[in-house]
Amino acid sequence: MKPEQKTADVSFESLLRIFTVPEGPDSTLTKIDEELSRNLNKFLREHIVAEEKPLRDIEKDFSRAAIPEQPEFVSDHTQHLLDTLVSHSVHTSAPSFIGHMTSALPYFLMPLSKIMIALNQNLVKIETSKAFTPLERQVLGMLHRLIYGQNDSFYAQWMHSANHSLGAFCSGGTIANITALWVARNNALKANGTFKGVEKEGLFKAMKHYGYEGLAVLVSERGHYSLKKAADVLGIGQEGLVAVKTDNNNRICPQALQQRISELKAQNIKPFAVIGVAGTTETGSIDPLKEIAHICQQEDCHFHVDAAWGGATLMSNNHRHLLDGVELADSVTIDAHKQLYIPMGAGMVLFKQPDAMKSIEHHAQYILRKGSKDLGSHTLEGSRSGMAMLVYAAMHIISRPGYELLIDQSIEKARYFAELVKQQADFELVSEPELCLLTYRYLPPHVKAALEHSKGKQTEQLNELLNELTKFIQKRQRETGKSFVSRTRLNPQRWGNLNTIVFRVVLANPLTGTDILSSVLEEQREIATQAPKLMSKIDALSAEIVAQSE
Amino acid sequence: MKPEQKTADVSFESLLRIFTVPEGPDSTLTKIDEELSRNLNKFLREHIVAEEKPLRDIEKDFSRAAIPEQPEFVSDHTQHLLDTLVSHSVHTSAPSFIGHMTSALPYFLMPLSKIMIALNQNLVKIETSKAFTPLERQVLGMLHRLIYGQNDSFYAQWMHSANHSLGAFCSGGTIANITALWVARNNALKANGTFKGVEKEGLFKAMKHYGYEGLAVLVSERGHYSLKKAADVLGIGQEGLVAVKTDNNNRICPQALQQRISELKAQNIKPFAVIGVAGTTETGSIDPLKEIAHICQQEDCHFHVDAAWGGATLMSNNHRHLLDGVELADSVTIDAHKQLYIPMGAGMVLFKQPDAMKSIEHHAQYILRKGSKDLGSHTLEGSRSGMAMLVYAAMHIISRPGYELLIDQSIEKARYFAELVKQQADFELVSEPELCLLTYRYLPPHVKAALEHSKGKQTEQLNELLNELTKFIQKRQRETGKSFVSRTRLNPQRWGNLNTIVFRVVLANPLTGTDILSSVLEEQREIATQAPKLMSKIDALSAEIVAQSE
Repeated sequence: MKPEQKTADVSFESLLRIFTVPEGPDSTLTKIDEELSRNLNKFLREHIVAEEKPLRDIEKDFSRAAIPEQPEFVSDHTQHLLDTLVSHSVHTSAPSFIGHMTSALPYFLMPLSKIMIALNQNLVKIETSKAFTPLERQVLGMLHRLIYGQNDSFYAQWMHSANHSLGAFCSGGTIANITALWVARNNALKANGTFKGVEKEGLFKAMKHYGYEGLAVLVSERGHYSLKKAADVLGIGQEGLVAVKTDNNNRICPQALQQRISELKAQNIKPFAVIGVAGTTETGSIDPLKEIAHICQQEDCHFHVDAAWGGATLMSNNHRHLLDGVELADSVTIDAHKQLYIPMGAGMVLFKQPDAMKSIEHHAQYILRKGSKDLGSHTLEGSRSGMAMLVYAAMHIISRPGYELLIDQSIEKARYFAELVKQQADFELVSEPELCLLTYRYLPPHVKAALEHSKGKQTEQLNELLNELTKFIQKRQRETGKSFVSRTRLNPQRWGNLNTIVFRVVLANPLTGTDILSSVLEEQREIATQAPKLMSKIDALSAEIVAQSE
Repeated sequence: MKPEQKTADVSFESLLRIFTVPEGPDSTLTKIDEELSRNLNKFLREHIVAEEKPLRDIEKDFSRAAIPEQPEFVSDHTQHLLDTLVSHSVHTSAPSFIGHMTSALPYFLMPLSKIMIALNQNLVKIETSKAFTPLERQVLGMLHRLIYGQNDSFYAQWMHSANHSLGAFCSGGTIANITALWVARNNALKANGTFKGVEKEGLFKAMKHYGYEGLAVLVSERGHYSLKKAADVLGIGQEGLVAVKTDNNNRICPQALQQRISELKAQNIKPFAVIGVAGTTETGSIDPLKEIAHICQQEDCHFHVDAAWGGATLMSNNHRHLLDGVELADSVTIDAHKQLYIPMGAGMVLFKQPDAMKSIEHHAQYILRKGSKDLGSHTLEGSRSGMAMLVYAAMHIISRPGYELLIDQSIEKARYFAELVKQQADFELVSEPELCLLTYRYLPPHVKAALEHSKGKQTEQLNELLNELTKFIQKRQRETGKSFVSRTRLNPQRWGNLNTIVFRVVLANPLTGTDILSSVLEEQREIATQAPKLMSKIDALSAEIVAQSE
């Protein structure tokens, strides 16, 4: 297994070497390691192929289900990984990759990640993590303070308390949201009289004990798909996740929320949690959190805020007011791997009350003993890595004012891009950016005029053709590999709530310049000409509509 | 933020630099990065303090909840991390760290991890992972084949099928187990007539539709604590997790299992899943999987095998027979971060049937569209990192015969240690190793004699004192920092099923030599002398018991 050897052999001695002897200074892997340290961006640019290879062809390289019977040399395998995997991975940190919430990462996180992985701590218990446990508790404390702004004595009392927890570090926002709703469900169906609580007796007995016909969680129709998973897993059922209508700005309508709650209660269905979204995945909108909090207080509902993406905005004193009311939430989800610029796998859920997580506390004999400070007694996951270290380091090296600059520039850039889109006669801005996310589509002026004049079936037909066009442009642009925007489906009121496919752009990467934004539009305009058949259908229908309306 | 600067400042230009300019060649971080590459073991030995600092003192370094208002230089902060975090972390890869399932890692995984993190792919969808998606599907296929051994055409048909999934990659065994039981629950309460399935309508309506009074999952009393969490989360309730009695070898009694199932059914409680454990966490025992499978077939139960730790044994053709029957399981959990020697955070659940996961499938508008190959439509988690790459690389570089050697030597070493313990007059082997895990305690001959003669209260008293002693030795040994074994609580039949605290040893690290094993016992014997008061209490009670019995 050493590059110097001619053929790889299997012996216990050669195996021991891979645990004790590093790759040689001239090995392929060492060279890559150094190349990455010297110039990450150059490495990625040089090794990731821009133009997309069809997935079917890529799959051919990953088609053997048999585990190899013959070992490979590290250098050979590294070369294989470069050729088949790295070259056909996605350049998520490219300045022109503006379609998802993944951005460039600060340099210092690469070597720090290597240290983190080399230490191989397991955060489930102190015995396998020692200083990492107080570090993670501090990180949770920092995020808690960012949201709830309690005073120093609060954190001195609770941050390191064995029987309390200000939240849970988890692999991502989905687990964070499930954890929050798990806590909310268990608190809503807690022990009472002879009933030992839903955690002990299960949902069926809990419902009978409390006499409810159903349970409900309410969220705007723009809520993240993970909430459906949460409702399924937790036994509430996807139908128990009630979608509340949104206004023109994709924000939940408080009146509609209030009304849905009343309707549910009239049916003897218990609305035990309401979720406010702070940065919807599709449009980046922020719900009116204060108003939701008010309703939750009146209705005795758990108020959870899904700020997986938008939560980082709290770092900016200039923009944190956009999330006013978040401090009234019982729990909040934040993903550090989104706009806190941490590598994938760093989600968090924070709870206002240090004893909120009591309802999901658990113990075991060989770890998580009562009174221990093992983090695992308050997490859905078991064994976990020391990712919190990366959040900790970034908080110190970038600092809050540094994050403020990053957040501010991303919002400014989104506003700039929105203006740019509006200035184009052949594009339509579909949703304005509240944070650094916006949606738009390609809509030439004569088609727009036709759409305005159209009615009923014709509107639908024209819109459907436009959807095809948007889809075509988005796919072709991705395949060409110069830049990437994503797409989603919205129902803008302006066009009679029709299903409308739009481009979706997230401008979190600080390296994305305004020149890139202009060229993204240029490229999309150009790609539209590459679908002459579709364009002529659109033109024909547009002409027909305009002719009829004259 | 660059080491050359005198004070760290906050400007957008300085922030851009941390995204574009690597740490200088002389920076502290670069030096560590290189040190890690040159000699990881030396780095860890030199930087991790052996002797334990009290947690209370460590916490002082992690007590500020305020996010810093002032940025730190990368080098300064790296030094800070070395002093406060790394130095007081746990040397999990030390050959004398034999208390938990964390071991030394192969060298090549460190630079590969850096590549993985630098690529920052998100496996939830192809748009942010491309070649990583087929790679992960192949890794799942490899593990599936290792367990179920289907033929090539099976994998050609299903491994890359958009609407199927051979399993799910997840952060760890807990999520894997929850996923398996989630699938089992949903399949047991699926759509039927007007009922739309538990995933849609929730558990309460499902129970009413099917007319059950309760749900149950059965597992041996040695089942992992995460299963209690799973039962809670899934709405079954912890009481729905029925513990079945084990035999002298800590294996589930099939007759007792059959009987419990009958009892549950008589109460109109639906036993929808049985879990066989392949490598219990506390004793490393393997349940009789074939017999459980037989019962599950008869009773129409989902058969899940928790092989989080023991699953790696399938790599050894010499020992895989220990898991005979695993191929009959409907689902199997395996953690690659245990004995497949991958860094923390690589769990997997495999399903025998490619369409088993249909019951938890989910879709969204902007990703996971129907027909897409996005992995996220079949996972409990959402965003996930490219950890599968490390499993893939290790499978190729170590290969199956390499893993076989690693597994074989670990089992041999455990047998050796068991013999060694038995040879000592003053130690008692409590559980024999089936794999590389065993338990024992310090029990001087005269105390053992007394324990054998004792009855009732006196047995309990003496045993309680021995528990205190075991606890004392384990803690002191950990604090001293030369070696680490863990402890747990068992109920050995030999001593009338009394709560018995034992040392727990896992011998997965290939670097652990037999000399270390001898010195662990030496040290424990020596530490016992450091508790003179406790020892004299034990001696006095022992003498009293022996005197009475004469």
